[in-house]
Amino acid sequence: MIQPSSVGIVAPQSAHFDQPLTLRSGGVLPAYDLVYETYGTLNADRNNAVLVCHALSGSHHVAGCYADAPDNIGWWDNLVGPGKPLDTRRYFVIGVNNLGGCHGTTGPRSINPATGKRWGAGFPFVTVEDWVEAQARLADRLGIERFAAVLGGSLGGMQAISWSLQYPERVANVVAVASAPMLTAQNIAFNEVARQAILTDPEFHGGNYYEHGVVPARGLKLARMLGHITYLSDDSLGEKFGRSLRHGKAMYNYGVEFEIESYLRYQGDKFAGHFDANTYLLTTKALDYFDPAFDHDGNLAAALAKSSADFLIVSFTTDWRFAPARSREIVYALLHNRRKVSYAEIESTAGHDSFLLDDTHYHAVLSSYFKRMKV
Amino acid sequence: MIQPSSVGIVAPQSAHFDQPLTLRSGGVLPAYDLVYETYGTLNADRNNAVLVCHALSGSHHVAGCYADAPDNIGWWDNLVGPGKPLDTRRYFVIGVNNLGGCHGTTGPRSINPATGKRWGAGFPFVTVEDWVEAQARLADRLGIERFAAVLGGSLGGMQAISWSLQYPERVANVVAVASAPMLTAQNIAFNEVARQAILTDPEFHGGNYYEHGVVPARGLKLARMLGHITYLSDDSLGEKFGRSLRHGKAMYNYGVEFEIESYLRYQGDKFAGHFDANTYLLTTKALDYFDPAFDHDGNLAAALAKSSADFLIVSFTTDWRFAPARSREIVYALLHNRRKVSYAEIESTAGHDSFLLDDTHYHAVLSSYFKRMKV
Repeated sequence: MIQPSSVGIVAPQSAHFDQPLTLRSGGVLPAYDLVYETYGTLNADRNNAVLVCHALSGSHHVAGCYADAPDNIGWWDNLVGPGKPLDTRRYFVIGVNNLGGCHGTTGPRSINPATGKRWGAGFPFVTVEDWVEAQARLADRLGIERFAAVLGGSLGGMQAISWSLQYPERVANVVAVASAPMLTAQNIAFNEVARQAILTDPEFHGGNYYEHGVVPARGLKLARMLGHITYLSDDSLGEKFGRSLRHGKAMYNYGVEFEIESYLRYQGDKFAGHFDANTYLLTTKALDYFDPAFDHDGNLAAALAKSSADFLIVSFTTDWRFAPARSREIVYALLHNRRKVSYAEIESTAGHDSFLLDDTHYHAVLSSYFKRMKV
Repeated sequence: MIQPSSVGIVAPQSAHFDQPLTLRSGGVLPAYDLVYETYGTLNADRNNAVLVCHALSGSHHVAGCYADAPDNIGWWDNLVGPGKPLDTRRYFVIGVNNLGGCHGTTGPRSINPATGKRWGAGFPFVTVEDWVEAQARLADRLGIERFAAVLGGSLGGMQAISWSLQYPERVANVVAVASAPMLTAQNIAFNEVARQAILTDPEFHGGNYYEHGVVPARGLKLARMLGHITYLSDDSLGEKFGRSLRHGKAMYNYGVEFEIESYLRYQGDKFAGHFDANTYLLTTKALDYFDPAFDHDGNLAAALAKSSADFLIVSFTTDWRFAPARSREIVYALLHNRRKVSYAEIESTAGHDSFLLDDTHYHAVLSSYFKRMKV
């Protein structure tokens, strides 16, 4: 076996679709582009494709790096590559930026052909189901009738689950990591604070800030700072930062006193410098809306009856955003339907962000699951 | 025994102090007023006084109501009154608005006599220790040499603990409910997001918004919305709101969709309509700074060695802001010093806010503790 290594230099591709897409919200996208990357090779039977769905701040750039930006490494590079748990010598892996995104796929920052201006606030609301629909069209384009697996963490896991309900015949395995069947009131509450931070930023301009040459950076920074707290555990923040004081003592001002403040401000500024606020808003709404049990009187087992895939569900002990109990809800609902489901609850101190980290036990679970899959 | 009842109509009093108060921050308040209320009667031995310390958004108005505002009921009215756990037939209870506050005590909204303008950003940073110092001067004024008890929830509990360290001879019992010995990195992180929301509000004007005839309502609203999430448990939000939709279905807009959003916006607006943003900032900083173990290399037991009071420590199972583990840290440190300490961990679904609620078990614990006290 070779040493695990990177997929190396990759390049995003773009697919244009001019068949209108009617969205759950009632809106219609007359045409759109999806930006995606692929790693590995589609085999002759076209049965080794794995779709990786991204979460709130992710993108199509799952693995490898760019020739002109060697430090821009894919967000799940530790998982995807030759000899890695999702082994690109065996699988053909696809990452795609979702509709409404800000990494090349058509979104609020794109030009609306009907007006010649950026979509801005006019971009229609998108849902997890809409993303799956668009991903399915990309799969058609790539000649993939059935995925060996659809895989995602957090919001990405919701897409993987939705695949098994919207296209049960097109997905053999669903891998949902650090995910949940739907948000709780607390989850929605955090999203709502983040949204209000953006919506009430005077530079939001009702979502049409592009035309004013500004961005609602203050709001987006606050949203990201808040998000970060929920991605990490109390324990991991304690280990990393504790009560460390920047100056060794209280300075009695509103500058950085505790190192945790510096960290959050830095993360917030970095994010606000490149991410699109409208995409952030739309994505938190997609999170809020996702609820496969809604049309089944809240009965998740009834909702998941449509699925026919095999499932791997993974959670992390200190994840309080999507706690293990939420993953177990999925597991129980699947078992109720006598689906094949594997479940791993990984000991980790890192909270929700664990799904992005290179944890030995976690990666061993994914590795053995992918090794066992038939392609 | 009479039926528990209200202390009835109360009236705030004000005490002026013109002996300068040097603060931990190095700042000096040349003179100040403390607004306070009292319930019950100080006995001849002057040994039945109980000081109630308030938390972030509290005030001196602990119990009863005002003649001209019968609906303005004290924040701990369920606890304090004739026949209630803190029985005003037996105890002389004092509530005082802390320095830097916005309910009458000298704070950023007060006029700085040196300039003739509101203090605003010029108001010095205040700490838990400064509050205790000011409270001690009020006790002197009222002829109270030693408190039967100093009592508080959350940040109020920190003041009660600090009393036992700053004036061990002046407090017979400390009752700290839903409190913590100091904030964690996660606690500070939430405070920091709240502060950044206020500080970056364009209407904050560097803290001198009074002069501009505006208030940073957007920032204060965000801060309060976020705070509220941390005061309640995931469970209680789930029970109260779940995923209830205002319109029974997704509307695909940024208005209120889920009832939890409506609740948070309402709470945020209500708070922003009356609370002072500078007070909010100062109070979150006082929370961050409080750390009795700081001067003892982080050794809480060493820090608490100074105390000589008896202690009652109470926590609530679903409080994740100041979790039971934080209360246990206090208990262990006290036991290490062979102090008399009672500890109750109350089963509650209501999270941090439990300390304000009328829980039977919780109130029974407080009631029996106060009944047992010698006065």
